[in-house]
Amino acid sequence: MHLLAEFEKQDLAEVGRGLHRFASDLYPICRSITGDGIRRTLRMIMGRIPLQISEVPSGTAVFDWVVPKEWNIHDAYIKDMTGKRVVDFERSNLHVLNYSVSIHETMPLGELRHRLHTIPEHPDWIPYRTSYYQEDWGFCLAHNQLLTLEDGDYEVCIDSTLGEGQLTYGECYLPGESEDEVLISCHACHPSLANDNLSGLVVATALAEMLSRRELRYSYRFLFIPGTIGAITWLAKNRDHVLHIRHGLVLTGIGDSGSFHYKKTRRGNTEIDQVAAHILRHYSESAELLDFSPYGYDERQYCSPGFNLPVGCLMRSVWGTFPEYHTSADNLDFIKPEQLAESLRLCIGIVEALENNRRYRNLQPYCEPQLGKRNLYRATGGETIGTEINARLWVLNLSDGEHSLLDIADRSGLPFATISEAAEVLRSSGLLSIISEPASADRVGRHASNPNKVTLLR
Amino acid sequence: MHLLAEFEKQDLAEVGRGLHRFASDLYPICRSITGDGIRRTLRMIMGRIPLQISEVPSGTAVFDWVVPKEWNIHDAYIKDMTGKRVVDFERSNLHVLNYSVSIHETMPLGELRHRLHTIPEHPDWIPYRTSYYQEDWGFCLAHNQLLTLEDGDYEVCIDSTLGEGQLTYGECYLPGESEDEVLISCHACHPSLANDNLSGLVVATALAEMLSRRELRYSYRFLFIPGTIGAITWLAKNRDHVLHIRHGLVLTGIGDSGSFHYKKTRRGNTEIDQVAAHILRHYSESAELLDFSPYGYDERQYCSPGFNLPVGCLMRSVWGTFPEYHTSADNLDFIKPEQLAESLRLCIGIVEALENNRRYRNLQPYCEPQLGKRNLYRATGGETIGTEINARLWVLNLSDGEHSLLDIADRSGLPFATISEAAEVLRSSGLLSIISEPASADRVGRHASNPNKVTLLR
Amino acid sequence: MHLLAEFEKQDLAEVGRGLHRFASDLYPICRSITGDGIRRTLRMIMGRIPLQISEVPSGTAVFDWVVPKEWNIHDAYIKDMTGKRVVDFERSNLHVLNYSVSIHETMPLGELRHRLHTIPEHPDWIPYRTSYYQEDWGFCLAHNQLLTLEDGDYEVCIDSTLGEGQLTYGECYLPGESEDEVLISCHACHPSLANDNLSGLVVATALAEMLSRRELRYSYRFLFIPGTIGAITWLAKNRDHVLHIRHGLVLTGIGDSGSFHYKKTRRGNTEIDQVAAHILRHYSESAELLDFSPYGYDERQYCSPGFNLPVGCLMRSVWGTFPEYHTSADNLDFIKPEQLAESLRLCIGIVEALENNRRYRNLQPYCEPQLGKRNLYRATGGETIGTEINARLWVLNLSDGEHSLLDIADRSGLPFATISEAAEVLRSSGLLSIISEPASADRVGRHASNPNKVTLLR
Repeated sequence: MHLLAEFEKQDLAEVGRGLHRFASDLYPICRSITGDGIRRTLRMIMGRIPLQISEVPSGTAVFDWVVPKEWNIHDAYIKDMTGKRVVDFERSNLHVLNYSVSIHETMPLGELRHRLHTIPEHPDWIPYRTSYYQEDWGFCLAHNQLLTLEDGDYEVCIDSTLGEGQLTYGECYLPGESEDEVLISCHACHPSLANDNLSGLVVATALAEMLSRRELRYSYRFLFIPGTIGAITWLAKNRDHVLHIRHGLVLTGIGDSGSFHYKKTRRGNTEIDQVAAHILRHYSESAELLDFSPYGYDERQYCSPGFNLPVGCLMRSVWGTFPEYHTSADNLDFIKPEQLAESLRLCIGIVEALENNRRYRNLQPYCEPQLGKRNLYRATGGETIGTEINARLWVLNLSDGEHSLLDIADRSGLPFATISEAAEVLRSSGLLSIISEPASADRVGRHASNPNKVTLLR
Repeated sequence: MHLLAEFEKQDLAEVGRGLHRFASDLYPICRSITGDGIRRTLRMIMGRIPLQISEVPSGTAVFDWVVPKEWNIHDAYIKDMTGKRVVDFERSNLHVLNYSVSIHETMPLGELRHRLHTIPEHPDWIPYRTSYYQEDWGFCLAHNQLLTLEDGDYEVCIDSTLGEGQLTYGECYLPGESEDEVLISCHACHPSLANDNLSGLVVATALAEMLSRRELRYSYRFLFIPGTIGAITWLAKNRDHVLHIRHGLVLTGIGDSGSFHYKKTRRGNTEIDQVAAHILRHYSESAELLDFSPYGYDERQYCSPGFNLPVGCLMRSVWGTFPEYHTSADNLDFIKPEQLAESLRLCIGIVEALENNRRYRNLQPYCEPQLGKRNLYRATGGETIGTEINARLWVLNLSDGEHSLLDIADRSGLPFATISEAAEVLRSSGLLSIISEPASADRVGRHASNPNKVTLLR
Repeated sequence: MHLLAEFEKQDLAEVGRGLHRFASDLYPICRSITGDGIRRTLRMIMGRIPLQISEVPSGTAVFDWVVPKEWNIHDAYIKDMTGKRVVDFERSNLHVLNYSVSIHETMPLGELRHRLHTIPEHPDWIPYRTSYYQEDWGFCLAHNQLLTLEDGDYEVCIDSTLGEGQLTYGECYLPGESEDEVLISCHACHPSLANDNLSGLVVATALAEMLSRRELRYSYRFLFIPGTIGAITWLAKNRDHVLHIRHGLVLTGIGDSGSFHYKKTRRGNTEIDQVAAHILRHYSESAELLDFSPYGYDERQYCSPGFNLPVGCLMRSVWGTFPEYHTSADNLDFIKPEQLAESLRLCIGIVEALENNRRYRNLQPYCEPQLGKRNLYRATGGETIGTEINARLWVLNLSDGEHSLLDIADRSGLPFATISEAAEVLRSSGLLSIISEPASADRVGRHASNPNKVTLLR
């Protein structure tokens, strides 16, 4: 499977513009963890890839949590005494504290003041704030605008509903040869914020689109879910199914100009960790590996101790470390077509490595086989050998049943694709055979170091 | 248990002055590995903490050694022909080669010369020299003084006794909830040397005093013993009891102005090693970890291969590396009140971490529990979280039965106290339970990698 | 066994000159992987050490290979139209593509041209090229000479034979106390190239000569074999015997002025790896350790996955990295007497460490034994101790059955010889006993991590 080579045959600038256009289409929607914003978003994704939509009723218990009421908003504003909308939801859906309850009152600025969220250090930006689990209302605005508000009464209106409804999420399942799954998870609950996480949504959608046209070794499951409560809900409904998850990746904040960061799984040494590290090292200009920490995106839930799934997180700039994070400055200019295309390219590299990473057995393990008689060696003795032949020697030497191709790539310092091609050549020459592996459901004992796991297995 | 916070409420300058005063009281006594000097020292310590005194007769076989004869000294001098005491034990007890046998003779300088120990590189300092196991006599003096001695006869007198007697040591045992013990060991055999090891004696005494007023998880055993032969004697008499020693620390040379050094146990990866490294990293300005070596203080005996106990050594400047070591320059000016107080503070930090370091089980291991509904999370979504909440997430994520609080502190990079407080909060919210551990005596199999250990267990 | 000390008593300059003289004697011979050149070479080695010669008929199957026809050459030249030998085998045997079939024709330069190998970047050097496994003919010459050849016809003659015959190799077996073997392997198939590998041949011969006069713990097997096919042939004929190989070293390129390089075994953590690293660190001025790679010399075969033997490779400059490699510039000036002697010295150091590296048991494991009463300690207390005593403390502390003397040397930072002497002193004082180890043939289970190994064990 040569996904990367195929991908690189395209006009990458055009690919990037396509990704950015899709982000632009999704940008204006006022999403939240429930409601019509996320429904509309999922429908637009469904225009590109098959998506199964789930709706979970408010009040459903999901582990320690309860699915909240559904929130929808129609309008919101603050009018001054002249009737002018000084703060207007129509101009930016960030202006409303997300999940604000309905309000329509007139009140003096003094009273309104503590309902107004700003960022004094970045006085022109509107912050993004939420209050999902505590009924509240409020507005977010630029600090400079706040300073212009004169004393006096203001008409405050939030025309929203909060009531029994559904939590909505979408799943794209691409069956492969094996029931073992690769999980790709994105949160789809943020309103007009581009990097966090429209970048993840559009790259995941494009990746799913590409994979949907291929024969696959693994099955792939793409989740488009509200952050935190969505992952918790999905896990609660799929508690036993998670045993099929062999590798996983949370995609978030991959459209900005920062260098790549891969946050390792809680276990820290799984195959997805090894693959991501290898691909970033060989295929990106600069990248950093981060140890797991329990704060971040939905890897928090997948890597909670009861699940401890092999799910890492791919980012460019790390959340919370760039000033535009969770503000109106995380807009469509903050993400760039070429950066989205580059992120898609890396995701494809990761998938290609997962798909092709196998263990082989050298069928001629005593001494080197004679490559020359198979036309796999250089013709004239005495000269040094090239990378291709070197890769063949590495694969032969380490294909002892213990080393995967990725282990061989890492030990040799050669890129995975070079090692993988060498293995193909050697296998077609009859020098290697594939070692078949048990499916995840039969490999449960390998994860049993975590005693909580046992509970999971009923 | 918040020992450190309690300690820091005191006036630390005053604490330091108190420690230094006690060192000053002990300083003039002529101690040795046996005799009235160490007896008097132990009695003075007994004025502050409960101490059980043991006396072991000369001639008692202790492993490969024999308890030596008891040594006492009353006076010693070298008089010149005018009758003037040119070297006088009354002025410094370092003047006598410790354990010198009795002598009273007149002899020419030429003959006396090879009995006189000096340090030419530090010509104003008197060296500290001993001859415990080979009957000998001699004097130690400043090299510059030696140079002033004129040829001629000198009256040499050492009024000492060496005969059947006792080896004396003191033990302060503070029983805790568990029979598992923390061993704190100090050598108490050096005469007028302040850093080595009055600093250890006074800090250990103050620590015992503080702990004696507390409910303790572990039992604590403070040993005030002659170096080498004292540790060997104690181990010989407590050969089976050592199975209760769960953690241990030799305290020595902790009054000077050098930065801290912690010498690891022979095993190198025990809990006391982890605790000491953590506390030094977070609570001292600069500190260095040293690998175990078989030369040093009484950790040599505790870490001999037959015992291999988890006993490390806390120092400031490392013995033998500072010029004042084993000379008259290691005097009361060489140790400072604030340095003694700082050393006590670190010891308290180590004890606090040992006391509070437990394993917990997350009772809601599937996904994160909802901290918000328990008022353990920030109120407004979208903002970043603080250290307190971060610590809670770490404790929840890693409380899987495998990680201790200290493991969590190390992995998160947060100070132990922060992690420990988070665990208390979570436990009182019903999210964690303590995992109880078997006592040391039942945990013997864990140390069985050393085959000598088996002999020990009869 | 004090091989190194004994060796260093000699005049090392004279030793070096002797090694260089032997290389000079071997230099003119036109060797190849079969034929009279290697036979003559082995006879000259046999003049110094006992050598058993094996001859394996052409056509014999050895694993995936077949022993090739035997090649011999009598003369070869290119004559210009005036009858002048412009390229003459008599001047350098590198002029002929090694294994060239017989040819005698006249042809224009245009036709001859693609049969002529040169190195344009080093226009004065003749390259060394071979064509063992594909029937071919050709000449190698200086690029500058090629440029002087004028158009026109040339008489081309290679008077060689290629036919049924033998592959020849020599073995020097020195039986020791144990049947466990140390393998020293050199390739002996290169024609007039000095560093690669006359340097290896002469050092190995001198080492064998020295060891042949000693009582040895291990048995030693020196192989002088054609590269690649020789190692494969030997392994095919000794497939089961290799279980006796406990340690091994390929010697190659150890006469040039480069610093030492040790290439680790495939396992990377065997005793020969530890010994070589220790000896290079303590006994050479600068040296580098290289991880195993499957390209190089005959360690490729010994470390193929089916065998996975503990065989490393000692070099100075690494093959392929210096311009003289495989050219006429790798001549007798490129290797120096003092460098050969230094390489021999290191090999002796490695052998001494292997011979003396054992595990001891401390017979007084509880506390330190009293070294003073055995005159193994310093006389006056209070002074610091020297290296000799320090080494004794290290050996006593770590002789718990788990640590070898080399482990102790590495952990203490002291040279192996110092630790080894301390162990001898302590053993003769009754404080240590040697722990006997099972022979290799009984230790097979230890290598069983490689499943291919099992096949080997029928």
